[in-house]
Amino acid sequence: QSSNSDQPLPDSVLPSWNEGKTRTAILEFVDAVTDSNDVNYVKPEDRIAVFDNDGTLWSEQPMYFQGLFAFDRIRSLAAQHPEWKTKQPYKAVLENDMKTLAEAGIMGIGQIVGASHAGMTSAEFKQIVLNWIDTARHPIKKVKYTELTYKPMKELILYLQQNGFKTFIVSGGGVDFMRPWAERAYNIPSENIVGTYANLKFEMVNDTPALRRESDGLFVDDGPGKPVGIQRFIGKQPIAAFGNSDGDLQMLQYSTIGKGIRFGLIVHHTDAEREWAYDRASHIGKLDKALDEAAKRNWTIVDMKKDWNTIY
Amino acid sequence: QSSNSDQPLPDSVLPSWNEGKTRTAILEFVDAVTDSNDVNYVKPEDRIAVFDNDGTLWSEQPMYFQGLFAFDRIRSLAAQHPEWKTKQPYKAVLENDMKTLAEAGIMGIGQIVGASHAGMTSAEFKQIVLNWIDTARHPIKKVKYTELTYKPMKELILYLQQNGFKTFIVSGGGVDFMRPWAERAYNIPSENIVGTYANLKFEMVNDTPALRRESDGLFVDDGPGKPVGIQRFIGKQPIAAFGNSDGDLQMLQYSTIGKGIRFGLIVHHTDAEREWAYDRASHIGKLDKALDEAAKRNWTIVDMKKDWNTIY
Ligand SMILES: [Ca+2]
Ligand SMILES: [Ca+2]
Repeated sequence: QSSNSDQPLPDSVLPSWNEGKTRTAILEFVDAVTDSNDVNYVKPEDRIAVFDNDGTLWSEQPMYFQGLFAFDRIRSLAAQHPEWKTKQPYKAVLENDMKTLAEAGIMGIGQIVGASHAGMTSAEFKQIVLNWIDTARHPIKKVKYTELTYKPMKELILYLQQNGFKTFIVSGGGVDFMRPWAERAYNIPSENIVGTYANLKFEMVNDTPALRRESDGLFVDDGPGKPVGIQRFIGKQPIAAFGNSDGDLQMLQYSTIGKGIRFGLIVHHTDAEREWAYDRASHIGKLDKALDEAAKRNWTIVDMKKDWNTIY
Repeated sequence: QSSNSDQPLPDSVLPSWNEGKTRTAILEFVDAVTDSNDVNYVKPEDRIAVFDNDGTLWSEQPMYFQGLFAFDRIRSLAAQHPEWKTKQPYKAVLENDMKTLAEAGIMGIGQIVGASHAGMTSAEFKQIVLNWIDTARHPIKKVKYTELTYKPMKELILYLQQNGFKTFIVSGGGVDFMRPWAERAYNIPSENIVGTYANLKFEMVNDTPALRRESDGLFVDDGPGKPVGIQRFIGKQPIAAFGNSDGDLQMLQYSTIGKGIRFGLIVHHTDAEREWAYDRASHIGKLDKALDEAAKRNWTIVDMKKDWNTIY
């Protein structure tokens, strides 16, 4: 395998990525770690690649999609909760009052919704997520959420897998929110998905085992929690990490500082026309410190507008 | 593929297992779930098999091997801790006073040693475990601990892998104690090992990332914790579970009660000559409730003396 850029590359390799230094950097890294004659060769069992989800594998505007799932859940359950008409943040959700919701913050809303899903079993929650992902539509794009996954990134996952990499999602999103659909959407199985979770409790009811969701014992797989999640679930230092925001800073540091060549990549949202354009000032997916660090660490920056010929 | 027992089986399939109903039960289960014409066919991505470690994949007498590791650690560190000569349970370890140690219990000793390993990084702890597993000898068998892994069970793991199963260890042992050597010993990679763990903290020291071990936030992957660990790390209900003690009861229930055929197996330690013989009255690997439940649930019992022609 050679990454000599004078040679034409087969159309089947990363076709949604435009020719240029971003695509070349990916190909050269993969060539080096898979070439057993290269000083930077890495055995397949150590070819660990970790991907953030929101803003890295699918869109995240105008709100993390798990937040939009939560809002849909509040609307679905409103009839059973007449008190929500006057109680925040439920009132804001029911009135579509985005200003108040922005002030409440995604974590505040997430925790309330997390609590409202506590007490059900893992199997029940999975079914709710599956029903939502199969039916809900994005408020602006008007398509199913899984149609807002990035084609170039799915090609990249496949390309790494074809080159012997083990690919994982390491996301601040809830692990039980992602697993029901991510296997189909990204070709990443449930056991390779690391995310935020709370306690579960095993129980036997009518001779049937179940795991009941609790609201305590929250592990937040974001920021400095991402390397912790990686060690806990994977147990190895990755050699490649893909993110888009300051929440990925520590995961990128943990994955790219070490012996041998490593690969860090940041998806920079620069395409206001086909997707969204935002970075340092955004409430969702803020990219500030990690953008500064990228230059220092030699991480690759995807300029979405320039580097991707197709978004979805 | 057929499990017709009139046909001779190739020598390469489970050679350390004697012909008989235990071996036949394994073969018939695997045949059913891998035969796409069988009503019980299971797609490869759902062929999840979980294995306990202590007493299921390697021996656990006269003490869980992680306990013996802990004792060796106390001896190694004794010169730096003169106060241990008079302080229990350290005194008992240094004097090889097994009666006092038995009274202190493995959990008590484990927690003390866990605390003594808190504050070091994951990388430092891994190196200590690797040094130990490469050099330490079992006090009775006088061989390396990895030579006390069960050959029939390693054949079984391989056989399941060859039939498209995803194989996991789900053990009460420390995940960071198992991972350094289990990949080589069992052909199960670090990301497929679920175990007990405490908190980790990410830090950057001298521009180098590290995960520091803490002593709080303990998750005990034993008993009712095993199904919790399975859901958290794997996210799917297994279709086969392999254990040897009451600590596996809930894992066996969770894995075997469900639609389609499932497979539960208990390794019964019946061979005092080649290994050890113990069950209902043992302090280590007590097998009592799970043995009663096995009959009710139709779990397969391995009679080690009768079913295995080779132990190690
Ligand atoms: Ca993100
Ligand atoms: Ca055991």
